[in-house]
Amino acid sequence: MGAAGLVPADGAELCGPTSGGGKERLDAGEIVIGDGGFVIALEKRGYVKAGPWTPEAAVEHPEAVRQLHRESSDEDKLENNGKISVNEAACDIAKEVAKGEDALVAGGVSQTPTYLSGRDEAEVKAIFRQQLDVFVKKNVDFLIAEYFEHIEEAAWAVETLKESGKPVAATMCIGPEGDLHGVPPGECAVQLVKAGASIVGVNCHFDPETCLRTVKLMKEGLEAAKLKAHLMSQPLAFHTPDCGKQGFIDLPEFPFALEPRIVTRWDVQKYAREAYNLGIRYIGGCCGFEPYHIRAIAEELAPERGFLPLASEKHGSWGSDLSMHTKPWVRARARKEYWENLMPASGRPYCPSMSKPDNWGVTKGAAELMQQKEATTEQQLKELFKKQKFKSNIVA
Amino acid sequence: MGAAGLVPADGAELCGPTSGGGKERLDAGEIVIGDGGFVIALEKRGYVKAGPWTPEAAVEHPEAVRQLHRESSDEDKLENNGKISVNEAACDIAKEVAKGEDALVAGGVSQTPTYLSGRDEAEVKAIFRQQLDVFVKKNVDFLIAEYFEHIEEAAWAVETLKESGKPVAATMCIGPEGDLHGVPPGECAVQLVKAGASIVGVNCHFDPETCLRTVKLMKEGLEAAKLKAHLMSQPLAFHTPDCGKQGFIDLPEFPFALEPRIVTRWDVQKYAREAYNLGIRYIGGCCGFEPYHIRAIAEELAPERGFLPLASEKHGSWGSDLSMHTKPWVRARARKEYWENLMPASGRPYCPSMSKPDNWGVTKGAAELMQQKEATTEQQLKELFKKQKFKSNIVA
Amino acid sequence: MGAAGLVPADGAELCGPTSGGGKERLDAGEIVIGDGGFVIALEKRGYVKAGPWTPEAAVEHPEAVRQLHRESSDEDKLENNGKISVNEAACDIAKEVAKGEDALVAGGVSQTPTYLSGRDEAEVKAIFRQQLDVFVKKNVDFLIAEYFEHIEEAAWAVETLKESGKPVAATMCIGPEGDLHGVPPGECAVQLVKAGASIVGVNCHFDPETCLRTVKLMKEGLEAAKLKAHLMSQPLAFHTPDCGKQGFIDLPEFPFALEPRIVTRWDVQKYAREAYNLGIRYIGGCCGFEPYHIRAIAEELAPERGFLPLASEKHGSWGSDLSMHTKPWVRARARKEYWENLMPASGRPYCPSMSKPDNWGVTKGAAELMQQKEATTEQQLKELFKKQKFKSNIVA
Amino acid sequence: MGAAGLVPADGAELCGPTSGGGKERLDAGEIVIGDGGFVIALEKRGYVKAGPWTPEAAVEHPEAVRQLHRESSDEDKLENNGKISVNEAACDIAKEVAKGEDALVAGGVSQTPTYLSGRDEAEVKAIFRQQLDVFVKKNVDFLIAEYFEHIEEAAWAVETLKESGKPVAATMCIGPEGDLHGVPPGECAVQLVKAGASIVGVNCHFDPETCLRTVKLMKEGLEAAKLKAHLMSQPLAFHTPDCGKQGFIDLPEFPFALEPRIVTRWDVQKYAREAYNLGIRYIGGCCGFEPYHIRAIAEELAPERGFLPLASEKHGSWGSDLSMHTKPWVRARARKEYWENLMPASGRPYCPSMSKPDNWGVTKGAAELMQQKEATTEQQLKELFKKQKFKSNIVA
Repeated sequence: MGAAGLVPADGAELCGPTSGGGKERLDAGEIVIGDGGFVIALEKRGYVKAGPWTPEAAVEHPEAVRQLHRESSDEDKLENNGKISVNEAACDIAKEVAKGEDALVAGGVSQTPTYLSGRDEAEVKAIFRQQLDVFVKKNVDFLIAEYFEHIEEAAWAVETLKESGKPVAATMCIGPEGDLHGVPPGECAVQLVKAGASIVGVNCHFDPETCLRTVKLMKEGLEAAKLKAHLMSQPLAFHTPDCGKQGFIDLPEFPFALEPRIVTRWDVQKYAREAYNLGIRYIGGCCGFEPYHIRAIAEELAPERGFLPLASEKHGSWGSDLSMHTKPWVRARARKEYWENLMPASGRPYCPSMSKPDNWGVTKGAAELMQQKEATTEQQLKELFKKQKFKSNIVA
Repeated sequence: MGAAGLVPADGAELCGPTSGGGKERLDAGEIVIGDGGFVIALEKRGYVKAGPWTPEAAVEHPEAVRQLHRESSDEDKLENNGKISVNEAACDIAKEVAKGEDALVAGGVSQTPTYLSGRDEAEVKAIFRQQLDVFVKKNVDFLIAEYFEHIEEAAWAVETLKESGKPVAATMCIGPEGDLHGVPPGECAVQLVKAGASIVGVNCHFDPETCLRTVKLMKEGLEAAKLKAHLMSQPLAFHTPDCGKQGFIDLPEFPFALEPRIVTRWDVQKYAREAYNLGIRYIGGCCGFEPYHIRAIAEELAPERGFLPLASEKHGSWGSDLSMHTKPWVRARARKEYWENLMPASGRPYCPSMSKPDNWGVTKGAAELMQQKEATTEQQLKELFKKQKFKSNIVA
Repeated sequence: MGAAGLVPADGAELCGPTSGGGKERLDAGEIVIGDGGFVIALEKRGYVKAGPWTPEAAVEHPEAVRQLHRESSDEDKLENNGKISVNEAACDIAKEVAKGEDALVAGGVSQTPTYLSGRDEAEVKAIFRQQLDVFVKKNVDFLIAEYFEHIEEAAWAVETLKESGKPVAATMCIGPEGDLHGVPPGECAVQLVKAGASIVGVNCHFDPETCLRTVKLMKEGLEAAKLKAHLMSQPLAFHTPDCGKQGFIDLPEFPFALEPRIVTRWDVQKYAREAYNLGIRYIGGCCGFEPYHIRAIAEELAPERGFLPLASEKHGSWGSDLSMHTKPWVRARARKEYWENLMPASGRPYCPSMSKPDNWGVTKGAAELMQQKEATTEQQLKELFKKQKFKSNIVA
Repeated sequence: MGAAGLVPADGAELCGPTSGGGKERLDAGEIVIGDGGFVIALEKRGYVKAGPWTPEAAVEHPEAVRQLHRESSDEDKLENNGKISVNEAACDIAKEVAKGEDALVAGGVSQTPTYLSGRDEAEVKAIFRQQLDVFVKKNVDFLIAEYFEHIEEAAWAVETLKESGKPVAATMCIGPEGDLHGVPPGECAVQLVKAGASIVGVNCHFDPETCLRTVKLMKEGLEAAKLKAHLMSQPLAFHTPDCGKQGFIDLPEFPFALEPRIVTRWDVQKYAREAYNLGIRYIGGCCGFEPYHIRAIAEELAPERGFLPLASEKHGSWGSDLSMHTKPWVRARARKEYWENLMPASGRPYCPSMSKPDNWGVTKGAAELMQQKEATTEQQLKELFKKQKFKSNIVA
C-alpha cells in the first residue's frame, strides 16, 4: 500500500511512495529491494497530477498501476508490492498482485500538514490513527512511517503505528545536516528506534550518494547508543549535489525540469554496492526511479541474492548485449570498464551544472506555510511571483 | 505498425520506430502527432534488448505494448498507433488498439545491413518487397520508409513501397550536413519526392533543434525544385549539440548513459511550436520520447488542433497544478514564464557538457562494418577494446 | 610599431596589436613568434582604457611598455617588438628596444570606422596613406594590414601599403565562415595576395583551434589558385567554441568577464605544434596572450628553432620543476602526460560552458553603427539597455 | 618585504606573499589593501620557478619587481609594498619603492618544512628567529606570520616575532573546516591573539567566498572569547568550490591549469564589499591576483576610503568606458547591472566544472612528506606517477 500514507487524505506534498519488505526477512538475512518511484512515474505516464500528487490512479486506472507493479518487480517472488493506493482501493490492488506470490503488503503514513500548521501531539496522532485503522482492517503485513522532515513528528507516527503490534519501519527525508530543527541523523535514528521502529533509514529528497552518507551517520548514532535496527535507503534517482538541508523540492528544477539530473543505471549499481557494503539491507529508490533503475539494484546484488531478476532476460550485465551492435565502436562498449568509468556529458552547454536552491527562510509556523482550505488565488500567486524574481537561475 | 519495418527481420540496429499519420489527413490540414520512442522505452521497462533491439515484445508481452500505446496516445481518436511489432503480430495489436477508433495503421521499412554490406539495388529491393508483402496482406493504411543514412537506399525503399499504390512517407536519420555520402538535405528531399514519397522529413539521430534545421533545408530544397510534399519530424528526446554528421550513436554515452541529455517537457513544447511555425504538420518524436513528451506536443498545439489530449486531465498547462503545492516557492513556479526561461542545471559538476563522438573513420564497405553471421568473438571484442582507448571521455 | 596602425588615430575598437617578423626571415625558413596581446595586457596592468582602447601608454608610460616588451620577447634576438605606440612615440620605443638586437620593426594599419560608415575607396585609402607616411619616415622594416572584417577594405589597405615598396603582411579577424559579407577564407587569401601581400593569415576574434581551421581554408584557397604566400596566425588566448562568424566581441563576457576562457600554457603548446604542422611559420597570439603564453610557443618549437627562450630559465618544460614540490601528489604532476591529458575544471558550477553571442543583426551602414562625434548620451545608453534585455545570459 | 619570510631560505612551497599594513592605521580606522599575488604573477612573467617558488627575482631582476610594485599599488601613498625579496635584497627594494611615500614595510615568516618533518618547538622557533634578525636589522615597520596550516606552528611563529616588540599580523591558509589537525577557525583565531597577534585572518588556499566564511568563524570565535583583533583576508584569485580542507594545491589543475578558475574583477568587487561588511579592514589577495584585481578592491571601497586609485584613471567603474565602443551591443554593457548579474561561460564544453582534489591521505610525519636534501630521483618520480593513476580527472 504505502501511498495511503504517502499522500495522506488531507492533501500532502510530493513524496516518495514506499515499498514494503518485512522485518522477518531482513532478520533472516535477506536483501529487500524497494521501489518508491511510483507517483512521479505515473505523473509522466499521465495518471497523476503534480502539485497535489494524489494517487487516485489506484481507483481510476488500476490497470496502469498493475502494469507498473509488474515492470518494477525485480523477481518472481514480487516482494515489492502494494505501493500506490488511495486507502482501501490501494490495499486491494496490492493484495491482488501479491496473491499467489510470496509477497508482503505494507501500509504507510507520512508527514502531515497538521503538524506543519503547528498543531499538538494529540491532534497529529489522531490523523495517523485514522489511517492505521484502515491498514489494520485490511490486515497488512507491516507498517511504514516515511517522508518526515521533523524527528518529533516521525517519532509520534512510529508510536502510533506501534500500537498495532505489527513491525514498523521508519524513514526520514533528511540529509547529513539532520532534520529541519537541526537534530543530527544519528540522534534521529536513536529516537526512532526508541519509539519502536525496527527498520530505520532515509527516503526521498537527496541523491544516492547523499543518502548513504546520512544512513552512515544514523548507523554510527545507533552504534554509539548500543541500539540495533535494520538499515534502509530509498534515495532519489536525481543527482542533487547542490541541495541544502531541505532537499530537492527547493531546487529551481523541481518538479518539471529534473531530467538532466536523472541517474544512469551505472550510478544505481554503484549505489547498490555501496549501500550493501555499508550494511544496508533494505535497498530501494524513491522519486525518479524507473523499472530499469530497480533492475540495476537487483543485477548488482545478484551474486549476494543468488539469482538475477526476471527483467534481466532482456538486459545483459554491463552492456554485454552491445557486442551484437552493427557499429564496431559501439561493440567496444560491451564491458564493465567502459560504463563504470564514463563521465556522461550533459549535452547542455548553455546550462549550469548546479543550482542555488530556493529557500525563502520560512519554516514551521510561518504564515505562508499555513494550510489553507481554498485554492491559491490569482492575487496570492502574483505576490509569490514577485518574491520569486532574482531567486533562481531563470534567464530573462 | 512500423516496427516490422523499423527493425527488419534480418536484424537491424536501433532506430526510432514510427507512428503513422495519413497523407489524406495532412492534405486536409490536420496536425499529426507521432511517437516513435517505443523501442527505447520498452528497453527501460524490461521488454527489449539493447544491441539487437528486436522488438519481440509484440509477441511475448502484448499487454505491455498495449499499455504503452494507451499512455502515448494523445487524444481520444488515437491517431497514433500501431507502432511496435514483429511482422504480423504487430499488425494485429495495432489493428486491435485502433479498432473502434478513428485511427490509421502504417507499415514501415528501414535501412538494411544488406545495403551496408555493399549489395546491389536488386538485392536490397528484394528485402523491402518481402516486408511489403506482409503489410499489403494486412491491408495497412499507408507505408513508411524511415531511418535511412543514405539517400540512395532510401529512394530504393520508396520506389519499392510505392509499387503497392498506397501513400508513402519517407524519413532519413540525417542532420544539416546531409547523408553519409555527403548529399545535402535539400537534395535528399528532392530525390525522395521524385521516388514517390508524399511526406518527407527526418527521424532519430539528432535533437529537436538539429532536426528542425535539417527539415528547413529539405523544405528549401523542395521549394527550389518546385516540388511539393508534407513535412515530418521525429527527433530524439536527447540533446545532441556535440553530434557530428553521424548522429547520437557515436556519442560515448550511447545507449546507456544518455540520461543527462533527456529533454524536458518544456523543450518539447518549444520544439512543437517551432516545428509548426516551420510548416511541419507531422510532428513526433523518436528514441527517448516518453508519454509525457508526446503529451507536451499535444498541449502546445492544442489551440491549433482545437482540443487538449486526454492525458492532460492530470496535467495543467505550464505547471499550473503547482499552485496547490504546500511550499510557497514551489507555488511560485505555477506559470509559463518560469518554466520557459529556466536553464536547468545538470547536477553533475564532475562531468563535461559535451562529448567527442566516437568515429573510427570506417564507412560503407569497411571490413569492420561487414555483416557477420556469428556473434562477435571474445578475441574480436578485445581488439575493439584496444582501439577504444583514448577515444572517449572515459576517466581511468 | 604596429599599434599606431592597430589602433588608428581616428579611434578604433579593440584589436590585437601586431608583432612584426620579416618576409625575408620567413623566406629563409625561420619561425617567427609574434605577440599581439599588448593592449588587453596593458588594460589589466592599468595603462589602457577598455572601450576606446587607445594605447597612449606609449607616450605616458614608456617604462611599462618597455617592461612588457622584455617579458614577451622570447629570445635574445628580440625579433618580436615594436608593438604598441601612438604614432611616432611608438616607433621610437620599438626602435630603442630593438637597438643592438637583431630585430625588425613593423608598422601597421587596421580597419577603419570610415569604411564601416560607408565611405568610398578613395576616402578609406587616404586614411591608410596618412598612417603610412609616418612609417616610411621612421623607416620601419615592413608593414602589416591587420584586423579586418571585410576583405574589400583589407585589400585596399594592402594596395596602399604596397605603394611603399616594403614587404606587406595581411591578417583578417575572420573565422571559417569568412568575412562579414560572406566571402570565404580561401577567397580572402587569394585577394590579399593579389593585392600584394606576401604573408597572409588571421588575427584576433577566435580561439587557437578556430584560427587554425580558418588558416587551413586560406591555404587550400591559395593552393587551388596556384598562389604562394607565407601563413600567419595570431589567435586569442580565450576559448571561443560558441562564437558565431562575428567573433568574441559579441560574447556576453566581452571584455570584462573572459577569465574562465583563458587558455592554459598547454593549450598554447598544442596550438603551436598544430600550427607548425599546418605549415604556418608566423605563429603568434593576440588578445589575452600573456608573456607565459608566448613562452609556451617558443618552448614547443624549441626543437625546430634550435634553442629555448631566455624565459625558460625559470620554467622547466611540461612542469618538470614540480619534481621539487613538497607534496608528493604535486611532484607526480612533473610530466608531459599529466598536463597534456588533464581536462581542467572551471570551478564555476553555477555557470554555463557556452554563451549565445549578442548579435543584433545590424551591419555596415546601419544607423547604430554610424560613427558619431559626440559621446553616447545617457538617453542613447538607456535605449541600448532596453534592447539588451533577454539577449544574454544575464541572471536577474 | 614579506617574501623573505614567505618563502624561507630553507626552501618552502608556493604561498601567497604578503603585503603589509600597519596595526596603527587599522586602529585609526583605515582600510588596508594588500596584494600577495607576486610569486605566481612573476612566474607567468618569467622570473620565478614553479615548484621551488623561490623569489630570487628580487636579486636577479629588481626592475621587474619594481614594475609589478608600481602596477599593484592602488594609490599614490603606496601603502602596499615590500613584498618579494630574498632577505636583505627584498628589504632594500621595498624600502626604495616606499621611499618618499607614506608607506610601511613588513617582514614575514611562513610555515617551515622543519615543522612538517616533525621537529620540536625549539628547533622550529630557531628558524623563525634567524629570519627575524634580518627584519630587525633592516628595521621593518611590522611583522607577519602567514601561510600556516597548523595552529601550533603559527602560534610559535607569532610568539617568536613578538619578541621584537613590533606589531604582528598572523594569517593561516585554512578553510571553514579548520587547520590540518582539525582545530576550528574560531579556536585558531583565539590562540593567535593569545600568542600576541593584533591582526588575524586567512591567506591563500581558498577562493574569496570560502575565505570570508572562514574569517567569519574566526570573528565569532574571538567574540565568544571576548578577545579583540583586526581581521585580515587574502584569498586566491581562483574559484575553489571543490576544495576540501587542504586547499587548492590538491586540485589536479594546480599550478599550471588554473586559468578557468580565475576570478573576474566583478567577483573581486563583490568580495571586497562583503569583506568590508563583515568588518574586515585588511582586505587583500593572494595567488592569482593581478594588478587589475587589486584595483577592483580599491574601486569598490572608494566611497569608504574617499578616493579612487590612480590606476582607475584608465578604468571607468563598472565598465562605463564601454559607452565609447563601436558596437551598440557592447555599449549596452556599460553599466553595473550587466556585469553584476552576468554568469560568465567557461568556453570549455568538454571540461567539468569541478574536480576531485588529490589527497593521498599522507599527513605530518609521513615518509613521503619528509624533507629530503637531494632532488627527487627518476625512480621516485616513477613511483609517484604510478600512484597518480585513477586519482584525477586525466583523460587517457
